[in-house]
Formats: sequence, C-alpha cells, structure tokens
Amino acid sequence: MFELPDHHTAHYFLTAGETDAQGLMPMTLIIARCIEAATEHANILGIGYDALKEHGIGWVLARISVEMQRYPKINERYSLTTWIEGLNRLYSDRCFELCDAEGHAIGHIRSMWIAIDMEQRTAADLTVLDLSRFPISDRRCPGPKPRKLPPLTDPKETEYTFRYTDIDFNRHVNTVQYVRVILNQWSMQFFDTHRITHFDMAFHQECHYADTVAVKVNEDGPEARCEIVKSDGTRAVAASLKVISNE
Amino acid sequence: MFELPDHHTAHYFLTAGETDAQGLMPMTLIIARCIEAATEHANILGIGYDALKEHGIGWVLARISVEMQRYPKINERYSLTTWIEGLNRLYSDRCFELCDAEGHAIGHIRSMWIAIDMEQRTAADLTVLDLSRFPISDRRCPGPKPRKLPPLTDPKETEYTFRYTDIDFNRHVNTVQYVRVILNQWSMQFFDTHRITHFDMAFHQECHYADTVAVKVNEDGPEARCEIVKSDGTRAVAASLKVISNE
Repeated sequence: MFELPDHHTAHYFLTAGETDAQGLMPMTLIIARCIEAATEHANILGIGYDALKEHGIGWVLARISVEMQRYPKINERYSLTTWIEGLNRLYSDRCFELCDAEGHAIGHIRSMWIAIDMEQRTAADLTVLDLSRFPISDRRCPGPKPRKLPPLTDPKETEYTFRYTDIDFNRHVNTVQYVRVILNQWSMQFFDTHRITHFDMAFHQECHYADTVAVKVNEDGPEARCEIVKSDGTRAVAASLKVISNE
Repeated sequence: MFELPDHHTAHYFLTAGETDAQGLMPMTLIIARCIEAATEHANILGIGYDALKEHGIGWVLARISVEMQRYPKINERYSLTTWIEGLNRLYSDRCFELCDAEGHAIGHIRSMWIAIDMEQRTAADLTVLDLSRFPISDRRCPGPKPRKLPPLTDPKETEYTFRYTDIDFNRHVNTVQYVRVILNQWSMQFFDTHRITHFDMAFHQECHYADTVAVKVNEDGPEARCEIVKSDGTRAVAASLKVISNE
C-alpha cells in the first residue's frame, strides 16, 4: 500500500492585502491557514470532508490554541506543517508548526477536531473510519495543552448579529468569523501597543445566520477573556488571549 | 534582458472553510484572489509595492468589475490569470480570467489601479516608473467597461463602524472588508434564491479605523446599488450588483 504521509507542509507568502494594521499576519489568517492545511492533509490521507460525507459525518473544530513567538511580516514567506498527534474514538489531535523562510519555528498551534453526525449534529464515532488512514506522528507540539475556560465574572457586554458573510457551507458561523468578532472587542491602540502571544479558543455550540449573541469580555489580570453567548444563555465560543507589551 | 511575462496564472482549490453558505466561492474571496494574483504579477514584473515604495508611491485599487457566469464550488480547483490591458500616466488597467479545472473561463474581472503618493494621499504619476516593466498584453477582457455609478435616490440606510480587523497595513479599510459590509446588506434568503452575475465597485475615498459610515442601499429595478458614505457626506465606496434568480 502507498505509504500515507504523516505530515503535510504548505508554503505561503504574506501579501500586503492580507496583513493587519501593524503589517503582520493577523490571527484570523493564522487560523484560516491552519484549517486549510489540515483540510489538505486530511484530503491526502483520504479522511477529508468528502470521505467523511459517505458516512454522514463531518469534521468540526472543537479547540484551537495558538502560541506565537513572532508573526510573519508583510511580503514574508512562511510555511505551515501539520501532523496528527493523537486519536481516540471521539476526537483527533492535530498540531501545526509555523516556520519562517529559513525554517525556524515562530509559532505552534494545537487543535482538536471532532466528527459530528451531519443530520443529528451530535458527536460521531471516529472508529467507523479506516483508522490506518490516521498516521500518528512522532512529532510533538511544545507548550501546554489547552485549559478549561471557566465562565466570566462581571464582563463588559456588547451584541453582535451574524450575517451572510459569517456563514459557510455548513450553514453555521465560520470559525474565522468568530475570531474576527472576538479580536474586534479590542481597540487599534491596544493592537498597536501589544502583541498576542497565546490565543486559545473552545467551540461549544454552533451559531447560525441572524443569531444575535452577547459578546462578553473580561480583562482583569494578565489574561483577557472573551465569550460568545447565545440568546438562550448557552456558551457558543470561549476565548482567552495572553498579550505582551511592545514597549 | 530577461523577458517580462505579460500574464501570470495562479492555481487554487476552494476549501470547505472558504465557501459561502451556498457552498460557492464568495465575492469577498474572488476579489481577495484578484488582489493576490495582481500583487504576484506586479512583484514578478518589478512594479510591486516594494518597488513603488522607493518612489514614495503605492498601488491603490480604484475600480473593480466582476462578471461571473458560474462560481467555483466547494472542493473545486480553479485558476486566475491576470494581465495588464492598458496604461496611462494616471492608471493601469488590469484584467483577470477565472477558469475552472478544465480551463473554461467562468468569470472575467476588470480592475483599475492608480498609484498614490503615500504621504500626500494624492494621485501620483506612473511615468516615474520604468514603463518597460508594464508589458501590455494582447489579451482582451470581454464585457463592458465599468459605468459611472450615480448617487442613490431615496435609499435605505444603516450604520457601520470600522474596527481592527477591517484595517490593513495602509492604515485604511481593506478592500475585502468593504465587499463584506456591502454583501451583508442582503439577507441569506436573497443569496439562497439569487446569484450575482455582475459586481461593480468604485473606491472614491479611504475609510479609517473607528469611522462610522452610512451604508445606503437602493434596490429599485433590475440592479441593486449600495454606497458607503462618510460622516462628512463624501462617498467612500459605490457598488452595483446585478443578480439572477436561481429558480
């Protein structure tokens, strides 16, 4: 049998139009590129959306933790290598290393993917798939595993309503749009004077078109926290940011 | 001298995470890919942002007109070919052909780029550049040139405030974010039952972080129109959409 590659590397160039106001790779694009590279690797392995669809199941991102030492700059080349670090009946752990043009690691990302039954929208059993198509890599992602993100106490609160461009083919809100809504809780002055070193997200419930959600922010202590809460009070998404000052 | 390529082709794959709610390539991504392919070709020709920066000038997109016969679907490969169709002292006309995996053209895009003085934010003279680096192609983009978009009469009006993720390294609103704001003036039901055949945009004034703009929409007749108007009453962006019913 053709040997399945236990990792996949994609190469990119950060164009001017893709940068944030600081001329750096934005967190929205980091997460979009991770999902893209994961999709490419899964397709090569024969465990992509198309393969899962035959079983009536689909991949859903449940957790993502980004740790950045440095961000690619405008006109900089970078690569993203992804591999599967672990697997059980319910989820697959996929990691990423973001490298500069010289191959030095400047970021590490961990993600946890679950398979859901597309009709019932409930967790599916990964063992219905050919598990030999999940080559577990020996590579290890440095840094701690994601922690629980407890509910916020006494947060600031604003509202957001999801619209057409927030929704993808799954008919729920696209991951990158949650990141966009969360980042926009902070001011330009904040991003001009700080850099995110850790960005951690947990996805609990799907949001849909026209849902109006509460966006809650708590900035006490060294860590900023954000929650997207549905109108029935259930938590859709939780995030935590650690930042350092540029000065 | 090394012969400059009079066109450039980039190849892409439409991932699940990139699609809109209809499972198709969204207009935001079409315009982002055009800017990306244009940037790549300009860099190859030595007339990219880096080359212009030495003269204190930079490229700004002034007009873009998209005409789509069909949209790439989820998991579909597509390519984008770009070339320079004309040039004068003030602007450069750049066109694009979007092809499916078999090489059949399914979309055509015209764009007009002006060079601006980065300090003064006024139009710059392109003849300061080496004009031999602008290989005018014999290719022709079918379809009409963009028309004037007159002011709207009696529009519906909402407000939008630009935030961190709307801004790029130029410290003004990124083109793709204007497209996002404009598309979101229509409902999901509209996009489920209609397909955009023509999308035309003109960029008049830059918007900045924290600007609150009026977003005006007029849907009388076969063509929908949208305007983004700054608080001082000047028009920042104008757009027109022609759609056909899916039924």
